[in-house]
Amino acid sequence: MTSNTTESRVLAAIDERRSRINEAIDEELPLQTPERLYEASRYLLKAGGKRLRPTVTLLAGEALADVEPATRDYRAFPTLSGAEIDLMRAAVSLEVIQSFTLIHDDIMDDDDLRRGVPAVHNEYDTSTAILAGDTLYSSAFEIMADTGGQPANALAAMRLLSSTCTKICEGQALDIAFETRSDLLPAEYLEMVEHKTAVLYGASAAVPAELLGADDEVVEAMYQYGIESGQAFQIQAAGSIDHARETAAELTERSKRRLSVLPDNDARGLLEDVADYLIDRGY
Amino acid sequence: MTSNTTESRVLAAIDERRSRINEAIDEELPLQTPERLYEASRYLLKAGGKRLRPTVTLLAGEALADVEPATRDYRAFPTLSGAEIDLMRAAVSLEVIQSFTLIHDDIMDDDDLRRGVPAVHNEYDTSTAILAGDTLYSSAFEIMADTGGQPANALAAMRLLSSTCTKICEGQALDIAFETRSDLLPAEYLEMVEHKTAVLYGASAAVPAELLGADDEVVEAMYQYGIESGQAFQIQAAGSIDHARETAAELTERSKRRLSVLPDNDARGLLEDVADYLIDRGY
Repeated sequence: MTSNTTESRVLAAIDERRSRINEAIDEELPLQTPERLYEASRYLLKAGGKRLRPTVTLLAGEALADVEPATRDYRAFPTLSGAEIDLMRAAVSLEVIQSFTLIHDDIMDDDDLRRGVPAVHNEYDTSTAILAGDTLYSSAFEIMADTGGQPANALAAMRLLSSTCTKICEGQALDIAFETRSDLLPAEYLEMVEHKTAVLYGASAAVPAELLGADDEVVEAMYQYGIESGQAFQIQAAGSIDHARETAAELTERSKRRLSVLPDNDARGLLEDVADYLIDRGY
Repeated sequence: MTSNTTESRVLAAIDERRSRINEAIDEELPLQTPERLYEASRYLLKAGGKRLRPTVTLLAGEALADVEPATRDYRAFPTLSGAEIDLMRAAVSLEVIQSFTLIHDDIMDDDDLRRGVPAVHNEYDTSTAILAGDTLYSSAFEIMADTGGQPANALAAMRLLSSTCTKICEGQALDIAFETRSDLLPAEYLEMVEHKTAVLYGASAAVPAELLGADDEVVEAMYQYGIESGQAFQIQAAGSIDHARETAAELTERSKRRLSVLPDNDARGLLEDVADYLIDRGY
């Protein structure tokens, strides 16, 4: 159970970065022709969202580079070799992927509302919504491709982004298939939420490790941190599984231990807070 | 106007590579769990298709590397620096992207049939079809990411693939918007077909140039070869535009001149034949 102080620290960390993230989304995904397509593509991104995933990306970069949180220019961010990259593009890319999945999921689930506004397929139409999602999909890859820095690191980030997207699709397919199943095993549920939701947290934490040139062991630990804290969040929210709270709490503790690969600094502390915050939101 | 000999040379070039391409599609996109998702993703790829785009990719690689057509192992293909790459993965990636666009386009256009079989959203359902397309989309990036070779070259290919997909979405959006327009200008039509169709030919020809480590000037020439020959094909097929035949013929000649950046060899000759074949099919 988290304290109010933990929650307020996480919300403050998000608040400190939100306006810069929103500005960057506008810069990286400007309104262009065909206008209706780009309006529909930007519609959900402009409607709000907590920006938790891009915040995790920025915090993970800060923890790895061992810099004071929220003091650096994310567009010229120090890697482990001293060269600079545009870490903000990576953060935007992950938020754009999240937005694409929401647009397509809302079509599949026939959800009318999202973030308090009509879903994209309602505000526009289904064809436009499919295409808006497809546009965000490739735009996210375009944005991720140009963070600068070592090509091998950028390629690793692109590879991670693409395998993450494939897993998200697999998770959504399992979610649809499980709707008609009454005999779902806890392990099956856990696999579904890992794929559908947790992998994007994993990528949000691991992509900056790839881009900054961290060792494979560090990349893997950051990925698992995201997977486990994301699974804990989902399990907590679904009250129907035996020992859900205990399992979620164990996952959260495990996810925080993964962070021991990082230098002991304020940004790492905030990533621990994020894990606690995720499980707390589930209650 | 092409001779029967040109057409038969192109069809022979496709035939010589088709079984290897089909085998590689099976290897790179195996049936896996969730099975229904992967069955739907593979459905259209297994239903056939000429494999013209992957053939262009293999031919462009052969022309650039200056090797005898269809004599090399595409899985261990020589780059300009002498190192080897898996050129076949690039060819498969482009065919997978093509298949993704067909699945989503068929939903948007509500087309019932594709390649003589029910469209994926008819054989399965719309949700599965959206998700099958999304799965192919990221799978294509996964496949392209691991051709081996220089990371900078692989990253350039990934960048080209992502910008190509964004343009395809823009082209499809224009196509939908133009359905209700009776005052379409030839330049608008040309822009639409460039985006919707020709860019994927462009990428099919330019990706091998990136992967083999060719100069930017060569990459650009190969891209324009694909764009122009693809536009010629589309213009020819749409009989409604003034001087369509003349414009198409000019584009074809221009596309063939682009190939002068390549060594003068048999594979280059086959790429010239492909351009002639594309315009010939349009009649």
